[in-house]
Amino acid sequence: MSRVSLGVDIGGTKVLALAVDDAGTELDAERIVTPHVAERPAGEATADAVISVVRTLVARNGWSLADVTVGVGLPGMMTHDGILAFAPNLPTASGADLGAHLRARESEIRVVCANDADCAAVAEYRWGAARGCDDVIMVTLGTGIGGGIISGGKLVRGRSGFAGEIGHMVVDAHGPRCACGSRGCWERYASGAGVARLSREAAAAGRLPVLVARHGGDPDAVRGEDVTAAAAEGLPEALAVIDEVGWWLALGIANLAAILDCGTFVIGGGLSQASSLLLPAAERHVKDLVEGAAARPPIDIRVSQFNEKSGALGAAWLAADHFS
Amino acid sequence: MSRVSLGVDIGGTKVLALAVDDAGTELDAERIVTPHVAERPAGEATADAVISVVRTLVARNGWSLADVTVGVGLPGMMTHDGILAFAPNLPTASGADLGAHLRARESEIRVVCANDADCAAVAEYRWGAARGCDDVIMVTLGTGIGGGIISGGKLVRGRSGFAGEIGHMVVDAHGPRCACGSRGCWERYASGAGVARLSREAAAAGRLPVLVARHGGDPDAVRGEDVTAAAAEGLPEALAVIDEVGWWLALGIANLAAILDCGTFVIGGGLSQASSLLLPAAERHVKDLVEGAAARPPIDIRVSQFNEKSGALGAAWLAADHFS
Repeated sequence: MSRVSLGVDIGGTKVLALAVDDAGTELDAERIVTPHVAERPAGEATADAVISVVRTLVARNGWSLADVTVGVGLPGMMTHDGILAFAPNLPTASGADLGAHLRARESEIRVVCANDADCAAVAEYRWGAARGCDDVIMVTLGTGIGGGIISGGKLVRGRSGFAGEIGHMVVDAHGPRCACGSRGCWERYASGAGVARLSREAAAAGRLPVLVARHGGDPDAVRGEDVTAAAAEGLPEALAVIDEVGWWLALGIANLAAILDCGTFVIGGGLSQASSLLLPAAERHVKDLVEGAAARPPIDIRVSQFNEKSGALGAAWLAADHFS
Repeated sequence: MSRVSLGVDIGGTKVLALAVDDAGTELDAERIVTPHVAERPAGEATADAVISVVRTLVARNGWSLADVTVGVGLPGMMTHDGILAFAPNLPTASGADLGAHLRARESEIRVVCANDADCAAVAEYRWGAARGCDDVIMVTLGTGIGGGIISGGKLVRGRSGFAGEIGHMVVDAHGPRCACGSRGCWERYASGAGVARLSREAAAAGRLPVLVARHGGDPDAVRGEDVTAAAAEGLPEALAVIDEVGWWLALGIANLAAILDCGTFVIGGGLSQASSLLLPAAERHVKDLVEGAAARPPIDIRVSQFNEKSGALGAAWLAADHFS
């Protein structure tokens, strides 16, 4: 068999495991629900879930654990030593050394753990939408915003391993409170939660009359999904809200382009499903927002090639690379 | 003689050239006024100035041009190919290939050109305040804010070579207009221009009564320098303005720490003279502003070791490294 690596992406709600060959081709997949078991020591339930999907994939394909490498993508701040230091969406694993838990279960397992958005960036850079671009930022638009940064062809890790927390870049110092304690973080605007909030504000301000009428006249009943769907149908008042979200997306991208001079931004995550409207809006606005635009080549905003599979694919790549 | 490199820092008003050995020790210095000659082709006058200081240093020390390497730090966006693509403070050299101009004057010159803040970052990282720290951002607080980024021990250049334009990170989307065309860029707050603006606003709002009285009751007469000086004397109302500037400085630092996980920030530039008040304020505020502070080692905000000499020193280092 060609070299196989398993990538396991632990989300707040589900675990996706993929088996891939060294060209990034998906050989097999396994999905389970993410366990949240507060009674057990941190990371134990998560480790059981990883071992479970790994064993399933290995057994189903007639491999042995010694044949494969395993990469795990985790939703939180990962130290260089593989400790999940801070994981708001996976609190029952916060503080855990997942690699140690896994080796305690399967002593021969060859595993590396990394931040999930870093994994996604690697997948898009090595095999996906950003192939051949050495300065890339992966922007995952979910409830919040995650990020992975490739600079000069290398994943940027930072001092402790925490680089890429781009969603908590403050873009509006007097803006709404964020769960992190600051105000006006980028993810308050250009994320699923941002669409919801901007939709709510637009409805309350009378800027979504058709949608409010559709919801029995109750502005509070208008959801972000309603606006996204109505925009896809071409409703002008909904398109205006999406354009506003696109402006905020462009603002953060312009900031990152000024700081890092990345030319390629890959947009993934749940909100990227609105990408056919959102990304052109962002690309239009970014020209006006980035400093020295006339002196720069255009900034390329692309949709993720692998979508919800990016994290698992990148985890597999990182593991294969680490043990090669 | 030990290996000698010349570093030439071209500012908007003056040119500083330093001769340094391979340990970063300053052997000689030369200063001239920056020429701004709009009638000549872009970069010609700048090239003459560089050649002039280089010849002076070489002749005065009995070296030959073949013995030394030459690094030039320029105030603008430099491409990987050494073109000064965008230089608002040196418009008469904007668009020039300064290296080509220099080689046309002295065919044997071994020269590299780089962005001045990148040079400063390199100097502080190799020889100065950030020695031993592999994830560092140099923040030069002048009229605006310049930046140089070291990540994992490497200078971050980006796609075109333009990385480090941190002053144009938007931190207040509804803030005051910036010359770059955006609103609320970081350098509208945490720079010399920012101190001036925040001082003016504080005076107009009645928050600087003692200073306004000292200026004959005219709020418009209160300058940023007055506030900095009064803060150094301990005047509470002036200290409050410096604390506000420190908060904005901390906000940008917190953003950069979230994005890049840099642990060390070196503050240079003219405003760093207010550093004994400004930096402690920034360090105090950054703890509240950076995401996941509890999970991170403290962020270290240090004053530049070389001050106005950082750019020339770093240019010398880059040249020595390039030709070694």
